[in-house]
Amino acid sequence: MSTNWIRFLSEEGAPGLGRLGPQGIAEYRGELFGAPVATGRTVALEAVRVLAPCTPNKVVGLWNNFLALCTKLGKTVPEHPLYFIKPGTSVIGSGGLIRRPSRYRGKIVFEGELGVVIGVRCANVGAEDAERYIFGYTCVNDVTAVDLINEDPNFEQWSRAKGSDTFTCLGPSIATSLDLASARVVTTLDGVERQNYPLSDMIFPPAELVAQISADMTLYPGDVIACGTSVGVGSMKDGATVRVRIDGIGELQNQLVG
Amino acid sequence: MSTNWIRFLSEEGAPGLGRLGPQGIAEYRGELFGAPVATGRTVALEAVRVLAPCTPNKVVGLWNNFLALCTKLGKTVPEHPLYFIKPGTSVIGSGGLIRRPSRYRGKIVFEGELGVVIGVRCANVGAEDAERYIFGYTCVNDVTAVDLINEDPNFEQWSRAKGSDTFTCLGPSIATSLDLASARVVTTLDGVERQNYPLSDMIFPPAELVAQISADMTLYPGDVIACGTSVGVGSMKDGATVRVRIDGIGELQNQLVG
Repeated sequence: MSTNWIRFLSEEGAPGLGRLGPQGIAEYRGELFGAPVATGRTVALEAVRVLAPCTPNKVVGLWNNFLALCTKLGKTVPEHPLYFIKPGTSVIGSGGLIRRPSRYRGKIVFEGELGVVIGVRCANVGAEDAERYIFGYTCVNDVTAVDLINEDPNFEQWSRAKGSDTFTCLGPSIATSLDLASARVVTTLDGVERQNYPLSDMIFPPAELVAQISADMTLYPGDVIACGTSVGVGSMKDGATVRVRIDGIGELQNQLVG
Repeated sequence: MSTNWIRFLSEEGAPGLGRLGPQGIAEYRGELFGAPVATGRTVALEAVRVLAPCTPNKVVGLWNNFLALCTKLGKTVPEHPLYFIKPGTSVIGSGGLIRRPSRYRGKIVFEGELGVVIGVRCANVGAEDAERYIFGYTCVNDVTAVDLINEDPNFEQWSRAKGSDTFTCLGPSIATSLDLASARVVTTLDGVERQNYPLSDMIFPPAELVAQISADMTLYPGDVIACGTSVGVGSMKDGATVRVRIDGIGELQNQLVG
């Protein structure tokens, strides 16, 4: 059975950890990736502010990892996962505000994605063994100041375009299991559906990503792999709200403010 | 007067912090970016293993930031700092071994650089004000699995090529001041000089980098900006030792092992 973990700020302003259930949040103490212990206390979801469900050291973001988008853009299918790195400082949770970078007036784009949350330190693991290093799954809005990518003719500025504070929205929960064969990513912009694509269309699925990326660099508990997006990406105006929903995880919602 | 801070592992295996002096290491306790206090104890430099002088959350690495290399490669002078992000997990200190990624048999390149160590959280600061957010300066060897960058025809793989464990060598110390007008970066490969370039040739000097990058994303104490390299970059064979020296900071030395 899948468990949904969240992190939150209580009414008193203290950070908390808990499992979502029909009665609200069953509070836990300890480390999410250690062996947290139930306190026996239940907190109402409405009484807390949800935080990002983990605090990654690094977020590895995939490019060109869905066949439908790859085909639409006329790209070749990659032979190895193609990725950029977003700093941990770019992460916010559901309900957090996406802030336009102070000196940037250009187009800001949303990308609804699946996020893979690492649970156990791993380096150079095989794909057949990778599942046990995955703690669970979350929703991601991988925000991009897209005009920056090709601003310079000699150098693609992925880290700058995607690395700003608040540009990695994660949440609302981490689901400890997910049926990747049937799950879909549904993204809405101000209530209008813009993306609705199946995770089964992934070129490199989660286990393969963990295997290949962990051969490049060690992954740590709480690190997130954002699996890349598919068709329907678009720009968001200041004031717009984007919601990314994956059934079993919940709905991540964030507003862009100028 | 400049102070040289180092982090080290004592003979007993405990991590330590100290100031280098003629009598050895004057030990401090507390946080480097807080207000560390002298313990009164002095430790011999020979008795300890030097660690990376800080543990960055992110390393921001510059591309095309020296006029001599820009001219040599026939690139246009950039209008904004061009950078990639290396994860904190890629950092090692002086004496640490650079490890060839397990599945990579290609060329590995050294780049001797100046590193700027952030001392105070900063976002969107002006260049005239940026100095006070800089804690000090260190030497960097920005290691690259260079064949990966253009392995895919559609996507430049900077983060993968530069983000592996052990690919960001920092140290040996952080010097709290440095004369940027006269200082030079000297890089040797197995004792043969390969780079010897002046920091005065930087397109975006440290204060400008802190100003511009902090407008893109918040910088935190211990974060490092690797200022980019100049002419003389080359490849290193398994077993080779690279030394990066900047007078006033010391000599960073690391061996590549296969």
